[in-house]
Amino acid sequence: MCGIVGYIGEKEAAPILLDGLSKLEYRGYDSAGIAVFDGEKINIAKSRGRLKVLSDQTNGGNNLKGTMGIGHTRWATHGAPSDKNSHPHYNADETIAVVHNGIIENYLKLKNKLIEKGYTFQSETDTEVVALLLDYYYNGNILETITKVMSKLEGSYALGIVLKDYPDEFYAVRKDSPLIVGVTDNEKFIASDVPAILKYTRDVYFIENQEIVRLTRDEVTFYNTDLEEIEKKMTTVDWDINAAEKGGYEHFMLKEIFEQPKAVHDTIHPRIKDNSIVIDELNMSEEDIKGIKKIFIIACGSAYHTGVTGKYVIEDLARIPVEVDLASEFRYRNPILEEGTMAIIISQSGETADSLAALREAQAQGIKVLGIVNVVGSSIAREADNVMYTWAGPEIAVATTKAYSTQLSALYILALHFASVRGKITDDELSTMIHELELLPKKIQSILDNKENIQKFATRFVAAKDIFFLGRGIDYATALEGSLKLKEISYIHSEAYAAGELKHGTISLIEEGTLVTAILTQEDLYKKMISNVVEVQTRGAYVLSITNEGNTECEKSTDLIFYIPNTDKHFTTSLAVIPLQLLSYYVSIGKGCDVDKPRNLAKSVTVE
Amino acid sequence: MCGIVGYIGEKEAAPILLDGLSKLEYRGYDSAGIAVFDGEKINIAKSRGRLKVLSDQTNGGNNLKGTMGIGHTRWATHGAPSDKNSHPHYNADETIAVVHNGIIENYLKLKNKLIEKGYTFQSETDTEVVALLLDYYYNGNILETITKVMSKLEGSYALGIVLKDYPDEFYAVRKDSPLIVGVTDNEKFIASDVPAILKYTRDVYFIENQEIVRLTRDEVTFYNTDLEEIEKKMTTVDWDINAAEKGGYEHFMLKEIFEQPKAVHDTIHPRIKDNSIVIDELNMSEEDIKGIKKIFIIACGSAYHTGVTGKYVIEDLARIPVEVDLASEFRYRNPILEEGTMAIIISQSGETADSLAALREAQAQGIKVLGIVNVVGSSIAREADNVMYTWAGPEIAVATTKAYSTQLSALYILALHFASVRGKITDDELSTMIHELELLPKKIQSILDNKENIQKFATRFVAAKDIFFLGRGIDYATALEGSLKLKEISYIHSEAYAAGELKHGTISLIEEGTLVTAILTQEDLYKKMISNVVEVQTRGAYVLSITNEGNTECEKSTDLIFYIPNTDKHFTTSLAVIPLQLLSYYVSIGKGCDVDKPRNLAKSVTVE
Repeated sequence: MCGIVGYIGEKEAAPILLDGLSKLEYRGYDSAGIAVFDGEKINIAKSRGRLKVLSDQTNGGNNLKGTMGIGHTRWATHGAPSDKNSHPHYNADETIAVVHNGIIENYLKLKNKLIEKGYTFQSETDTEVVALLLDYYYNGNILETITKVMSKLEGSYALGIVLKDYPDEFYAVRKDSPLIVGVTDNEKFIASDVPAILKYTRDVYFIENQEIVRLTRDEVTFYNTDLEEIEKKMTTVDWDINAAEKGGYEHFMLKEIFEQPKAVHDTIHPRIKDNSIVIDELNMSEEDIKGIKKIFIIACGSAYHTGVTGKYVIEDLARIPVEVDLASEFRYRNPILEEGTMAIIISQSGETADSLAALREAQAQGIKVLGIVNVVGSSIAREADNVMYTWAGPEIAVATTKAYSTQLSALYILALHFASVRGKITDDELSTMIHELELLPKKIQSILDNKENIQKFATRFVAAKDIFFLGRGIDYATALEGSLKLKEISYIHSEAYAAGELKHGTISLIEEGTLVTAILTQEDLYKKMISNVVEVQTRGAYVLSITNEGNTECEKSTDLIFYIPNTDKHFTTSLAVIPLQLLSYYVSIGKGCDVDKPRNLAKSVTVE
Repeated sequence: MCGIVGYIGEKEAAPILLDGLSKLEYRGYDSAGIAVFDGEKINIAKSRGRLKVLSDQTNGGNNLKGTMGIGHTRWATHGAPSDKNSHPHYNADETIAVVHNGIIENYLKLKNKLIEKGYTFQSETDTEVVALLLDYYYNGNILETITKVMSKLEGSYALGIVLKDYPDEFYAVRKDSPLIVGVTDNEKFIASDVPAILKYTRDVYFIENQEIVRLTRDEVTFYNTDLEEIEKKMTTVDWDINAAEKGGYEHFMLKEIFEQPKAVHDTIHPRIKDNSIVIDELNMSEEDIKGIKKIFIIACGSAYHTGVTGKYVIEDLARIPVEVDLASEFRYRNPILEEGTMAIIISQSGETADSLAALREAQAQGIKVLGIVNVVGSSIAREADNVMYTWAGPEIAVATTKAYSTQLSALYILALHFASVRGKITDDELSTMIHELELLPKKIQSILDNKENIQKFATRFVAAKDIFFLGRGIDYATALEGSLKLKEISYIHSEAYAAGELKHGTISLIEEGTLVTAILTQEDLYKKMISNVVEVQTRGAYVLSITNEGNTECEKSTDLIFYIPNTDKHFTTSLAVIPLQLLSYYVSIGKGCDVDKPRNLAKSVTVE
């Protein structure tokens, strides 16, 4: 996730671009840059660090003269944050400048091809291939060139393009990354999101996939990929600036919950090629993978819960023993790390203090560490022997949702890869499961589309003092996360249990009206779980069941029921967690809590 | 633990013995027997099963005639429950009959010696050696013979002895097992505990260690082991029958809490011989032990918590990787059980359904199972490949205390044994740790002696809705048990956290007045834990700290503090859990809950 902006008009472009970028910092903030055309040439200023650094460097934009330009604020995906990797990116002649939000999935192939053709690259980014492809295919007709380049690109992108040959117009295009156009009589804007332009106009066009935009001072023209002009309807946005920052959602958490289909897609899709798993950045040979004797998954909080799911999935598919450990426990426990052990450290921020210490402890004992990390260039990303990135984009709400979902996805990908390399699943099984993985974003979306149901249920939970979450197997891992989510933002004392443990003590807490959420996604365990549900209901509990479509048997013994789509039994956490996130969100709202910034908590725990 | 009774007087002995035994069934109930002297010979009736079986078999005792006899109700330790293993035990001539409560620790050595001398044994019990030793050493003077035999016995015993040569008197003796004598003008009684005789008299002598008693119809004489007559003071007992059953305690749970020094001693002591660990019943060669590559500890509830402690102790001392799993999860998770894996199943009752199923699952996959079990002859004891018994005696209260403590002790013994055999600790280290183990019962007693302090603290906790327990490392395992104990009997929603996880969500639940119990027994982790305590205190929590004597640094940042004696860092759970048990007990009392039979719970969970 990054933020892009563009401007053409009568005023100086640079200050407007910097101002627009400042409203998009929630989309990325590790580096920033602008390109402004001064009538003669395209001048670029860019720098690692927060936008403030760029602003100081350019004297608030005043050092770059010109009334047309593009800008970018970055959240690193390919290539760590650095001056060189900052956008915009040029061709060698400095006649074409590009800003990009998204991921070019086949960038490595394209890059190698361009190198063969004699091109040199200045950065490690995927974006630079776009600038150089535009250069390579440029035939004097930029619209034709853009469609040609689009036909070569796989992945997602919103692009802003400024060319020396077109001094009074610039171009934009999108696929699977957001892009809007704002207009006034004699000014035109592009942006990743509404807040960037709200100060200047409320008249907006929402650009759809595979649409190309040409912007001059006086007009905007839209094209499809056949370069036919298309009509688009203008919208007048009535959001205030605060809502606009959250994409129209009331809170970042809700926005991020709704970003999950895309985040999961972005994390899964680039790793699937021709019906097999390819993890470009995973620097492990087949021999390495076959040599793994044991995996430690080490993490904190929600990331730890993805590890609990991961243990089930990896053990069952790849048949490698997995031990999941809390980072704060692992680092002090004098762990036994035998030869052939591999450590996986999971962290959204890549800066979690205990996880980082655990990484160092493992490495000190000679164990290779794979980091599953969301922030490129973070400490864990830098120090781990291998890194697999989750592409969730920046997460603002303290309670994680989309980062959690992408960590799960990364673990699925890893489990399938290991299982396949180690010959524990057939190609057919792999292919079926890959297909299911690819369907996850759509299925998550279908649950989100049904959010009113959960909202309705939440009213029943608002007054609760205690809530219990029950599950068996993978559903227990889901219960752990459902419980933590509720507790962190609603301050209700919730607790998750492996349902079989109920009778060994906890069931004494169940009394008339106690709320219980039961998760039943594992067909083999339906009957056992239904027995547990009946046990608590008999003692007066009020039960919400989350179960698979078709498991209607459950209805007899539950007060509320929420159905989730069917998927492979290993991937159910990714679906079952969605209603639980929504439940927590609506309960928190109902209680009037500060959803995005719950008391006592920080987003990234960089102390012990 | 078993119950013994004895009678001499004017009435028929058998019905009185059966009635007395019926009051002692809480001490054992897997088999029962009586021996009555009819003037000619000693007749014995005994049977596996509840007392009812014996009563029916003897027509309420009417089939055995005579006015002197002894009786026994059994809780098996050596030898599974069976007719043959039931007490009383005879010599071959049937001229000496013995009932016994306790454990003869050196019975195997004595048995082998007697076999060399030509004796044959009818049972697998440790008790039979007493009957045959009396026969072997008998020189016409029974008092001399008894002291001779006592000098040969190691372990604990309360014995009742009837001899054909002494038609108008019988004998009793005790060491480390309870024994009382009751008197009326023309009747004398012995019993393990007061309730057995309360119907007949309230005039009682409490027999001390190494005292011998001679009982006739008219008088009782007490001797020391030099056979000097000693004076004893008679006590008049004013307990009602209900209190008497509980040894004067208000509840079985409190009684069992106070039985822990003895239970822990009984479980540890027989396994320590000449400064090394000898586990007679553990059928594992040095090769077997050296070959262990991984241990699964599988259990439910509190037994699972002993496994969590066990993991720390075994991994740290013996350097064998340990995975602790809930039985209800293990059995359905398709666990990876590689060659060299050993499973340890822990269960008080030996009948826990999920644990039994896990045992079968492990065996089906070709893995050897060691059962750590309290009930001899139970399903898990029978089906496991090896069994190590905890000698806690029967536990009546639903919330486990002494069984839990003995399970811990068994795991320590096992860890030291494995560590020693595998050469991971030196003889000196072993010797130091054995010494610490042997001191545990005394240290537990010193905490119990200080119970008023905890009782005082408990008043602060009675009104609480939520209580959190924090610990790191082994203290986390202790916190889990402390939390479960409180929750099961006081219905307060308590929860335990690894303290390092607080910041990853749970700390949002801390508000003004929230109760937190912190456990700080690990010197290496004091500072980290104190930081966590300060964090919750800063946010308004009211903190009770349980820590080692001398850790006064803790006082600055805690509202209440309870010191426990210092011990080896691996064994601290055994001490830290005691104040937590007491806390739960007093809070439950304060709330007016049914301590011994909390709602919704059963003692032994024999269904899933």
